[in-house]
Amino acid sequence: MSYQPDDLIYEGKAKKIFSVKSEPNLIWQEFKDSFTAFNGEKKATMVGKGKLNRHIASLIFQKLKENNVPSHWVADSGNISMITRKLQMINLEVVVRNALAGSTAKKFNIPEGTRLEQPLVEFYYKKDELGDPFISDEQAMMLKAVRDNGDLQILKDQAFLVNTVLKDMFDCAGIDLIDFKIEFGYDSQGQILLGDEISPDSCRLWDKVTHEKMDKDRFRRDLGQVLEMYQEVLNRLMQNQ
Amino acid sequence: MSYQPDDLIYEGKAKKIFSVKSEPNLIWQEFKDSFTAFNGEKKATMVGKGKLNRHIASLIFQKLKENNVPSHWVADSGNISMITRKLQMINLEVVVRNALAGSTAKKFNIPEGTRLEQPLVEFYYKKDELGDPFISDEQAMMLKAVRDNGDLQILKDQAFLVNTVLKDMFDCAGIDLIDFKIEFGYDSQGQILLGDEISPDSCRLWDKVTHEKMDKDRFRRDLGQVLEMYQEVLNRLMQNQ
Repeated sequence: MSYQPDDLIYEGKAKKIFSVKSEPNLIWQEFKDSFTAFNGEKKATMVGKGKLNRHIASLIFQKLKENNVPSHWVADSGNISMITRKLQMINLEVVVRNALAGSTAKKFNIPEGTRLEQPLVEFYYKKDELGDPFISDEQAMMLKAVRDNGDLQILKDQAFLVNTVLKDMFDCAGIDLIDFKIEFGYDSQGQILLGDEISPDSCRLWDKVTHEKMDKDRFRRDLGQVLEMYQEVLNRLMQNQ
Repeated sequence: MSYQPDDLIYEGKAKKIFSVKSEPNLIWQEFKDSFTAFNGEKKATMVGKGKLNRHIASLIFQKLKENNVPSHWVADSGNISMITRKLQMINLEVVVRNALAGSTAKKFNIPEGTRLEQPLVEFYYKKDELGDPFISDEQAMMLKAVRDNGDLQILKDQAFLVNTVLKDMFDCAGIDLIDFKIEFGYDSQGQILLGDEISPDSCRLWDKVTHEKMDKDRFRRDLGQVLEMYQEVLNRLMQNQ
């Protein structure tokens, strides 16, 4: 079955969302060529980025599906677009870390790359005007970010499952999955489903041998060769399908 | 039985700790006249403060004991000193909030004084050089701040118990307990016990009628009449014993 994008419902920093009138429970997601970092303060456009991220995200969603980890992904609908289930998004960024980097490494003054004995899950409250602060389970409940405490446990369980599949997938491609950020939402039946995207924009990916960064930190930290590295991630994942 | 302070073991910002040689499981705590805030950046000395805080803390520890909430407090040993059990302190500040104020009100841009539907418990990692950051249960485990996850639950349960007793105690004194910070430690048997002190230094206390601040925020925010208010808290607690 083929779908058509109808009305633009929402345009975010990295994606445009269109309705699919023939299927009200589905939406059409278009991946933009834009990069943003530091809560939107740093911006750029790189032609071809949307296509790379859509392709990588699709491979990941398919791999998760093969491993019985459900997501909103339904089908690809073009080079830069995919069809997904419509979700009522949960205002939490769920971060899983296998090694410390970024804000948490800084917070505890622990060197970047320090391995964790077991994966660490963290919640950040998605609110641009507050700077997406790190929050605890109790604060998430206070903010009514989810329906109840059980939902937080589902998010953690799902996040660890995603981590197990992704760590292995990237490992086979010679890539070390340092950390990643995912988002979830409620579908029309109230079930919690993995949403948004998983791509080098939302992961820290280091080459297993050279430890070179292959993710959005290349853009954040002005390391150059941004899209070349995204392409390399895609190539390696495709070789290992 | 009377005790004597022996060697000075430790001098902190607000207290001096002495060994009690006749009882190796006990220590002698002396309350200093010093005020510090903002991670030690703001300092002052006010004569009589140690005595007020020791007195208030003793009344609170006694009230908790009457309500079967154990603490390290054993007996008073003078105007500015008390005998307590020796604890191996846990590097967590446990905060309970009945209404939002301070850092958490700021973090979520919620007006100070906003009532919470239910008390909120928070952990902060005690590490001056990191600025005592707010942490989640998972981060506390990663940092090995406690022995296991069960300990975190004990801290929360104990903190809520303390809150129930204190809210009532202050309420009877015409004072609204907005929030407070407590610390815990392991005794020689490995039991978790409430330690440190509870005083206007570690609580937010607002007059129930005028909403005037009766706590360390008077010092932090240069509101004046600092010790006068600490004295007023003590007077009211004593009237309601």
